[in-house]
Order: sequence, then C-alpha cells, then structure tokens
Amino acid sequence: MRITGITTNDVRFPTSLQSDGSDAMHPDPDYSAAYVTLHTDGAHEGHGLTFTIGRGNELCVAAIESLAPIVVGRDTDDLFADLGSFWRAITGDSQLRWVGPHKGVIHLATTAIVNAVWDLRARSADQALWQLLCSLSPTEIVDLVDWTYLADYCDPGAARERLEELAPGRAGRIATLTAGGYPAYTTTPGWLGYDDDTLVELSRRALDEGFVGIKYKVGADLARDRHRLALARDTIGADVLLMTDANQRWGVNQAIAWVNELAEFDLHWIEEPTHPDDVLGHAAIARAVAPVRVATGEMAANQLVFKQLLQADAIGIAQIDSCRLGGVNEVVATLLLAAHADVPVCPHAGGVGLCQYVQHLAAFDVVAVSGTTEGRMTETANHLHEHFVESIDLHGGRYWPSTAPGYSVELRPESIAEFEFATGSYWSHR
Amino acid sequence: MRITGITTNDVRFPTSLQSDGSDAMHPDPDYSAAYVTLHTDGAHEGHGLTFTIGRGNELCVAAIESLAPIVVGRDTDDLFADLGSFWRAITGDSQLRWVGPHKGVIHLATTAIVNAVWDLRARSADQALWQLLCSLSPTEIVDLVDWTYLADYCDPGAARERLEELAPGRAGRIATLTAGGYPAYTTTPGWLGYDDDTLVELSRRALDEGFVGIKYKVGADLARDRHRLALARDTIGADVLLMTDANQRWGVNQAIAWVNELAEFDLHWIEEPTHPDDVLGHAAIARAVAPVRVATGEMAANQLVFKQLLQADAIGIAQIDSCRLGGVNEVVATLLLAAHADVPVCPHAGGVGLCQYVQHLAAFDVVAVSGTTEGRMTETANHLHEHFVESIDLHGGRYWPSTAPGYSVELRPESIAEFEFATGSYWSHR
Repeated sequence: MRITGITTNDVRFPTSLQSDGSDAMHPDPDYSAAYVTLHTDGAHEGHGLTFTIGRGNELCVAAIESLAPIVVGRDTDDLFADLGSFWRAITGDSQLRWVGPHKGVIHLATTAIVNAVWDLRARSADQALWQLLCSLSPTEIVDLVDWTYLADYCDPGAARERLEELAPGRAGRIATLTAGGYPAYTTTPGWLGYDDDTLVELSRRALDEGFVGIKYKVGADLARDRHRLALARDTIGADVLLMTDANQRWGVNQAIAWVNELAEFDLHWIEEPTHPDDVLGHAAIARAVAPVRVATGEMAANQLVFKQLLQADAIGIAQIDSCRLGGVNEVVATLLLAAHADVPVCPHAGGVGLCQYVQHLAAFDVVAVSGTTEGRMTETANHLHEHFVESIDLHGGRYWPSTAPGYSVELRPESIAEFEFATGSYWSHR
Repeated sequence: MRITGITTNDVRFPTSLQSDGSDAMHPDPDYSAAYVTLHTDGAHEGHGLTFTIGRGNELCVAAIESLAPIVVGRDTDDLFADLGSFWRAITGDSQLRWVGPHKGVIHLATTAIVNAVWDLRARSADQALWQLLCSLSPTEIVDLVDWTYLADYCDPGAARERLEELAPGRAGRIATLTAGGYPAYTTTPGWLGYDDDTLVELSRRALDEGFVGIKYKVGADLARDRHRLALARDTIGADVLLMTDANQRWGVNQAIAWVNELAEFDLHWIEEPTHPDDVLGHAAIARAVAPVRVATGEMAANQLVFKQLLQADAIGIAQIDSCRLGGVNEVVATLLLAAHADVPVCPHAGGVGLCQYVQHLAAFDVVAVSGTTEGRMTETANHLHEHFVESIDLHGGRYWPSTAPGYSVELRPESIAEFEFATGSYWSHR
C-alpha cells in the first residue's frame, strides 16, 4: 500500500457563543480542528487532526500541507516497520525545523500527520490504536522514541527493562480495563463564563454521572474564585476531588499567593499556574504550594519540556496533550519519562477530538507503561462528540476504550460540510 | 497618521547552492525573509521581516496575514505612545496564542510586524532605531516590557534603577560608539561545508579585516572537527578568539564529552551544544565544560527561555536573536534580564537581515543597558547585504551603526522582484 495524497480541512465549531471552554486567558474559543486525510491505493484511509481554538487553525492547515511531501508517496510497509525513523524525519526537516523546532504551528501540524499515519496503521492491522500499541514488544515501543535529547535523564535501556517487567501482566490489565473502564473527571461544570446556578447544577449532574473529580477554572478574580470554590465544595462534598486550573494567568509569585488563598478548599491540583515555558517557575510554585500538586502539560511544547518539568520536580501530575505533543511517538516518550519519574499521567482532554484520542493513550499507559490507574484519571468535557464517526463511550464516570480499528478521530462528512471554515453551511451564513 | 494596510512577500535566496550557512543540523539553508510593509496615510511606510531558512517561510507569511487585523487601522499616535500595550495585544490574541504561545511560526511572524511598527516609529521621528531607543527615558523603556512572567527573577523597579544610573553616561557612550564602532566577529570562514583551503583562506581574510574572533561550526564528525580547529588555531594564532557552534547536534552527555575533546584549541565558547529548549541540559553542560562558556539564543523561543537560562547559570553568553524574539520589545526585555544577571549579550546575526537589525540592538545595549562593550561582540557574515536599501557599514572588523531613519531592513524592490518565491524572476526559471 502506498500513500497517494492528502486532503486537509479547516473545521471550526462556534463554541464561543455559549462560553463553552471559556477560561481566564481564552474567553472566546471556537474549538477547531486542522484535519487531515491520508489517501492510499489500498483499502484504508488515515485520519488525523490537531486541535486549536479558532484563529490560527488556518496556519496549522497550511503547515500540514508544507509537511505533506514527507509522507506522500511512502510505501506503508516500510513506513509502519520503522515509525521511529519517520518521526525523526518529519520533525527534522532541515529547513522546516527552523520555524519550530518541535513547537508551535509546525509541531501541531506534525501531530495531525503522525496521528493519521498511526490511524492508518491501526486500521490496516484491524486494531484500535491502543490495542496496536499494547501488541508491540518493549523494544518496538522504545524504538518509537527519539532519545537524542532524553537519554541524559532516562536511559532507553532502563525504559525497555521497565516495559519488560510489566509485559507479562498486560493481558490481565486489558481484561480489567475492558470490564471496568478508565476513571475520568470532568471540566464541564467549571468554565469561568458560567453563572452560579449553572455551576451548581452541572456539578450535581457530574456527581450523578459518577466522575471521580471536577475541575474549576480560576485566576481572573480572587474573590469570585473563593465564592465559586466554596459553592463547588458545598455541592460536591469533601470526598470528591476538586481540581483548579488558572490557564497561565499568573506570574510565579502571584500564583503562590493566590493558590495559598484557595488552599482551604482542599485542591487536588492547581493546573497551569503560570506560563507553560517556565519550568523553573513551576518548580518554585510546586515547592511553595505543597501539598497542593502542580499540574501542567496541555501547552508543554514537546518532550523536552516534560523532561525538565520532571527533572526539576516541578509537577505532581503530567498532563500529556494528544495534539500539542508531536503525535503518538512523542506521547509514548512522555509516558516513559513520567513512569521513570513515578509521576502520574492525567491526559488533557476536552476541546474537539482530544477525548477521542486520549481514550487510547490512557489505556496504553495502564496496560503497558505505568501498569496502574492509581492517582490517574482522564479529563473529559461534554461537547462536540457527535461530530465523530465513532464517538467515545463515556458512562458511569469512566471511559470505555473503543475497539473499532484506528485512532477514532474520523469526522462525519456532514460535520465537515457544515463547519468547514469559512465555506461550510454554518459559516457561509455568518 | 493611520496604518491603512499591509503587504507581505515571501523572499528566498538560493544560498544552499554554495553551502553558505551550512551547519550540522541545517545542511542546505536557503536564507529567506517573511517580509512585511505597513502602509499608512502619512509620509512613511514601515518595513519588517523575520528570517527563516527556506521551507516554512510561507507559514510565517501566512501568520503575518493572520495577525494583520491587530495592527491595520491603528492610529500611530496612540500606537507609538504605548508600544508595551501593543506588544501584549499582538502576543496575547485570545485565539491565536493557542498556536504558540510566544513561540514558533506565530512568534516569528509577530517579530516582523512589531519591528515594522518600530521602523515606522523611528522613520516618523527621523531617527535610526537605536537612536530612538536611546532617547527614551528609563520608565519608557521599562514600560515596553511585559513583566508578568519575568518579575519573579528581575523586578521592573530594579531594572529602571539600573537604567537611571546609566542614563547620565549615554551621550558619552554614543560619542565613543560613533567614533569607534562596535566590535564584531565573523562566521564566514567556519561553515561546515567548506573545504580546508577555503577555511584557511577565509580565516586569513577575516584577520586582515580586523575581526576580534572567528566562529567555526562543529558537531558532525569529531575527527574532522579536531582537524579543522587545529587548522584554524594554526591560522589565526593564540590571541584571536575562536568560537565553536554545534547547532543543537548533541545530547547532553555527548556535548560534554565532545567539547572536552576540543578544549585544547582554547574555545572561547561552545554555542548551541544541545536542543534549544533544554535549559537544564545547558546548565549541566556549562558546569561540565567550564572554563569554556556555553552560548545560546538564536533558537531560544522567547524571553521566558532566557530568564531560565540566566536563573540556572546555564549560559555565559546570551545570544539574542532579532527575529526569534518577538521584536524590539522582547529584545529590550532580554537585554534587561542579561544585564541583571551580568551576562554579556553577543547578538546572533548572519542569515538575511539579522546584521541589519542587530547593529541597532548592540548599540542600544552599550549606550543604555549594559554600558560596556567588554566581553561583547556582534556576529556577522558576508552575504546578502546588497539586497537592502541601506546596507550595513562593516569595516575594520567593526559595525558602524546606521544613522538613517528606521530599523534598516527595507529590501530593494529589484531584490524582491528577483527572489520572491516562487514567482520572482530567479525562481520562476527553476
């Protein structure tokens, strides 16, 4: 089979109209996907996307097209046999790496293509992506990773040994996962734009649905944060995990002061307390707000940032992002680094497509890499799932990983026709 | 005066044909500019560019167009009166920041626009950019910077006090600079693609021209590096500064081992020994290769990375990049941080347009921020200067800062007509 061409779509959903997804730094997101389809001369197509919040999505689409020559024309047998080399090739183009490297628009676009290749491989193997990953040997998994800039922290041999130790238990953990699902938490009640009644009503509903925790946005106004968190804690009781998320609003010293003002509400974590590039800032905050954990990752540019966050003891929770990291290969690298550091991974989700992706990543983590769900849960949010051909199965407050072949982000053709920007039926009427 | 519109150009020079600019990671660069012209209803236009090495330039051009609505329509009196607020606006767009933030394509594009605004302001004031900056009060300078994520390391009040202490000496230092120029070093003899004869011949020529130092690319082959550096040291003698540049080729441990194998050639610095995002890696290398200094910055994504490099004692030399940093405002921030840390700034140049820019930045640094040229020199390379309307004055191994109004990156119309990609006369014949 050969990859014969690609199609891209700039798909945007008008979520800003309902304040869905509003936070202290992003008051008006239109959840969007830079979407790619890999065409082949065989029986399957590959689908991938990267997530943005509106303007700028066109840049990711353009970058996918700039990267396309690296994948179009490839024989899939050769490609699938060494996806580690493919990842180094697509992230190492001698001219394109200048506009990264490994960050921003070019890396977000890389994600969409890398994940489309993985989708194609999983479909070709008639396996869900997580099942495919769980069928790889420890050596095959380690070889997916570019260790050049990681080996000073985590030796690839040590990573392989860890995977080998856990390999005999994979089948048992797959059975447990299939029978019991994977724990989830929700951000749906916590958007900053919601009024008190909505916060209380949606929090109650989240409890009824069985989530293990709820996350609330903070950071715009301290008095209002205290009011909302008091209301939230009153509503959910003392035993449900309450997380907070400042979406980078604060400087380091302000973060420390603000979080300590909220500590009485028993925060399980504070997420993105400051700029995502500030590793040493996160470390200073972590020391000053303990036992509240610092969590970050949805805007951690690449595996290098995670390596340093772990080296500096800056995070108690690693929030891998399925679109910000450069596709499956870099997610695998980051899961291995986090396991090495014994820091739990709680994937970032929500947006559009992230829940579709992370069901696979969390499943692979528990089965093959960390071997446990202890201290782990995956984010979710209740919108836009209907646009996918195979929407996630989320019930009882848990993810039930898909067993349909692929990586689960194929969009419904009618959703593309409606929300393609700006020619789709929705946007062309605006 | 009002900004009425913008024009963009994707300009690429075929430098890969001569191995100009070749290094261990970028063997075939086509030095390129994503170029912007701000049109007004007044007497002046503003010109700015960002530098790339070929493919990917189209993405920076597209990103300039995505950012254009933030600047088009603005009244220049309002704009120039508070360029700090403008910088926060253009780097903080609630949707576009998702595809950064403050890094990669969107930040490179931001640079071009921010610098075009500064060019317009300087032309309107009938001053060279460096003269304009040197005419600002300490408070005006400090107010150009977004301190949100910097203040935990360097307090804006302390930065202002430093500027105030140096203010009385500005006029004297301007006179010294105008009479004696600013020290420079060259990378022209050191490209990895050059053979031995070319290396020796160009090194001799650099000595004749009066440069204080020469930089050689390393990192692809240890035996060849030792051969080339022995040849270089033989040619230039013991007293001329010899710098090396690995362009991110190594992991941390490999960097330490390799640099120690080269130490006998008395390296003034090792530049980009590993991935530009790896602050803690640079710190480990710096500790292990002292007294060889670690230098980096041409791919440091933003002021946050510089803050941490300085906090971690990871660099002995701060190489600000006039295009990678988000324009004049973020350069000013980084100069203030480096002065706070007492680390010399040696601007990255070469490429296309960088020499044009940095003559202004080095001049501002010595006059108003650091107050000295001790340990400082600006990079240069001998190509592509002829494409600018006001080409740099570089002689006697020194920069002689321009006094023509503006920021000096206006391209000659005939150069655009020839090298616009792919419709210009050069490319349309390929």
